[in-house]
Amino acid sequence: MMNSSIFSNMTTSDLKIVFNKIKNFLGDRFTTSVPIRENHGKDESYHEGFIPDAVAFVINTEEVSKILSICYQHSIPVVPFGAGTSLEGHIAAIKGGISIDLSNLNEIIQVNVEDLDCRVMAGVTRNQLNNYLRDQGLFFPIDPGANATLGGMVATRASGTTAVKYGTMKDNVLSLKVVLADGRVIETSKRARKSSAGYDLTRLFVGSEGTLGIITEVTIKLFGIPETKSVASCVFPNIEKAINSVIEVIQIGVPIARIEFADEVQIEAINKFEKSSHEVLPTLWMEFHGSENSVREQSEIVQRITEQYNGSSFKWTSKIEEYNKLWKARHNAAYAAAALRPGCGIWATDVCVPISRLADCILETKKQIQSSSIPAPIVGHVGDGNFHVCFVVNPKNSAEINEVKKMNEDLVFRAIEMDGTCTGEHGIGYGKVDYLVKEHGENTVDVMKSIKFSLDPRNIMNPGKVFRD
Amino acid sequence: MMNSSIFSNMTTSDLKIVFNKIKNFLGDRFTTSVPIRENHGKDESYHEGFIPDAVAFVINTEEVSKILSICYQHSIPVVPFGAGTSLEGHIAAIKGGISIDLSNLNEIIQVNVEDLDCRVMAGVTRNQLNNYLRDQGLFFPIDPGANATLGGMVATRASGTTAVKYGTMKDNVLSLKVVLADGRVIETSKRARKSSAGYDLTRLFVGSEGTLGIITEVTIKLFGIPETKSVASCVFPNIEKAINSVIEVIQIGVPIARIEFADEVQIEAINKFEKSSHEVLPTLWMEFHGSENSVREQSEIVQRITEQYNGSSFKWTSKIEEYNKLWKARHNAAYAAAALRPGCGIWATDVCVPISRLADCILETKKQIQSSSIPAPIVGHVGDGNFHVCFVVNPKNSAEINEVKKMNEDLVFRAIEMDGTCTGEHGIGYGKVDYLVKEHGENTVDVMKSIKFSLDPRNIMNPGKVFRD
Repeated sequence: MMNSSIFSNMTTSDLKIVFNKIKNFLGDRFTTSVPIRENHGKDESYHEGFIPDAVAFVINTEEVSKILSICYQHSIPVVPFGAGTSLEGHIAAIKGGISIDLSNLNEIIQVNVEDLDCRVMAGVTRNQLNNYLRDQGLFFPIDPGANATLGGMVATRASGTTAVKYGTMKDNVLSLKVVLADGRVIETSKRARKSSAGYDLTRLFVGSEGTLGIITEVTIKLFGIPETKSVASCVFPNIEKAINSVIEVIQIGVPIARIEFADEVQIEAINKFEKSSHEVLPTLWMEFHGSENSVREQSEIVQRITEQYNGSSFKWTSKIEEYNKLWKARHNAAYAAAALRPGCGIWATDVCVPISRLADCILETKKQIQSSSIPAPIVGHVGDGNFHVCFVVNPKNSAEINEVKKMNEDLVFRAIEMDGTCTGEHGIGYGKVDYLVKEHGENTVDVMKSIKFSLDPRNIMNPGKVFRD
Repeated sequence: MMNSSIFSNMTTSDLKIVFNKIKNFLGDRFTTSVPIRENHGKDESYHEGFIPDAVAFVINTEEVSKILSICYQHSIPVVPFGAGTSLEGHIAAIKGGISIDLSNLNEIIQVNVEDLDCRVMAGVTRNQLNNYLRDQGLFFPIDPGANATLGGMVATRASGTTAVKYGTMKDNVLSLKVVLADGRVIETSKRARKSSAGYDLTRLFVGSEGTLGIITEVTIKLFGIPETKSVASCVFPNIEKAINSVIEVIQIGVPIARIEFADEVQIEAINKFEKSSHEVLPTLWMEFHGSENSVREQSEIVQRITEQYNGSSFKWTSKIEEYNKLWKARHNAAYAAAALRPGCGIWATDVCVPISRLADCILETKKQIQSSSIPAPIVGHVGDGNFHVCFVVNPKNSAEINEVKKMNEDLVFRAIEMDGTCTGEHGIGYGKVDYLVKEHGENTVDVMKSIKFSLDPRNIMNPGKVFRD
């Protein structure tokens, strides 16, 4: 079912030599087992998988370095693998080669409580980290939904529901340990909170999707667990009013921790899925962090604003049960969407636009969805102007696939037209590789390619991702 | 007095050809006048100036592009010039060539109130921008002290007193228009708040000090002017206690807008300079932004914390006169330092360390200063672990200069040893060019150099800065 790589059909002596060299020091942790390879060629997206020729389960940076220097010598592609939760085909071995599984690089190396930072290996997942930190009163806020690895979150510049307050991965990484294409190992920065010493290599590797190097260690900022967390929800007669109230909340400077939108299609899907009875209207779910006084004040301000935009049924609570119930509904959004058409799959896409254009962008997108036969709920991290469309599609029906392909492309072009981006947080992978030039222009993409070439002249680092070869 | 460039003594026909080509379209805005060239070769630092061979006063991106494509053809160096307020010799034409003065690129192109962002030409200064924004209830918070241009602030990854709340330039730039070495023009990004579409070229150019391209337009985040601003000050029996209270304020998550440290030497200098009578003790100056309730709550929490660390004389106020008085004292710090030794100059340096090492770093530095003959007050943006030493030195006394050189180098090595950086916010320029490898290691600096070479193969972009040639 999955594509075999160009190498799979080639028993070149070169590939055999490389495999033997790596097997020499990895032993059983280097495998060509078909089920394991298949597991490593397909992410959580609707994109076709591509099977790597082998999988290497590494346990430290030195092994990654050794593998890369061997692969570099022989020009064999490598594809880094974390938790496999990417959404634009990032881990597909479209040129074959070796999948480097980093999930065993799972040590939390050092937590510096006074400095509010920690250093972890790239395979540590965000749930693992937050469970570890809880007793120390600290947390790492970035929440892309999936229990991704920190390395994967860095590589895709992940963000999610809390970015409106805490920023994205680009804002929360202090330093990276990276293995370059030829096996050299670098640290991108010291641990100081800020620096103006040379080029910002940290930010260059954040979002580079494994195409410039393999991240093996990550130093990130941490935050104190807020004294109080409260949540609120509110419904609106239409989408413009919901979005306009978000604009005002942001403008007035309420330090809101989450402000999530769901359209009425999504709410209806959740009601069916959860057997709940949320009002079937455009909805905002919000979260506030701070002292007891501060979260109360924040929610009062937000309630006043939502009322000005005919928001109703404003519910605010600090009760943990209600908190969990609300975010469970949000978390179930994709499952609820999938359940709309049993046997169908999810084609999840995301764009991000300046918030002044967000209502327009969502409305035009909904209009197109309504004229199609495909159900497609919308949710969004609207404080940032970012939203997701979840097309529920029959993967065996090529007419449907083509219809979704068209709607996805129209959405991307619409967002770019509005001075937005083809992807707010999922990345390019190979799924959006054709839109990079459309968004940035030839010259800008040429600069990216020059940088790629300068660090990976043999194009062995996750080739075919970010750029089309 | 200033160094003449290698070109100044060379009337090569090549240079003449280049000058004529540029004069052709710039007319009087291209000059070889000695006083103007001298003005453009020396920044506000103690570093020697180097005179460019000519100065080009440009008024738009197209002119910059034309000049660069000509200079690229003939391998003539170019040095971008904003307000000339850099502190590590960034604008010195150490290889000669043409200074490109961007100060007439001073148009505020577009303010997007709903999106809390604006697009300005690179020569707009931060005071100009904030005066313009005031009526719209908006402001740009980054405050490096000097009335620098936005382009210069981007190029040096500036930050300053408000970084503890609002971040540095890296956190506040959405997109850049950049002219590359060969004259091509790129936009690094669309205007969306976040994106995961390709490499983060925006952050690559932030802090690149004119060595990768010339920034001609800047799109930055704006913020609503806070409803209330209040200030507080507090003194401590010793430096450790002051710093430990800062650590706790940050850890507990108080969203403090400024938290500035001054040592007793600095306070004494200010008292002399202003004829004031501040207690001569390690001091914190703080600012709070938010609603009236929020700033009161913040200051109450901070007062409680400072009391735990034997802080005293805690004064808190929202009165504008007091606000201005406090920040005037801080602003006068460098002038007050200079006044300690009339006829002497200031050698300002800065480092940044993880905050857990900040007290140690300051104390060790003070110990060395005390054993020298050079007065050197210390101030710091201590919420970020960043501090400045202001050596008051007789520039004609080479023994003194060497002594300061040694103390500066020891400070840099001390900071790096503590997992910190050789420069928190002043940049590398040519003043700290020898410390880059010490901080990052050979491999990391080699990666930076590969990127430099890929974008500027003829090394015409501000050569000799960031890296030694």
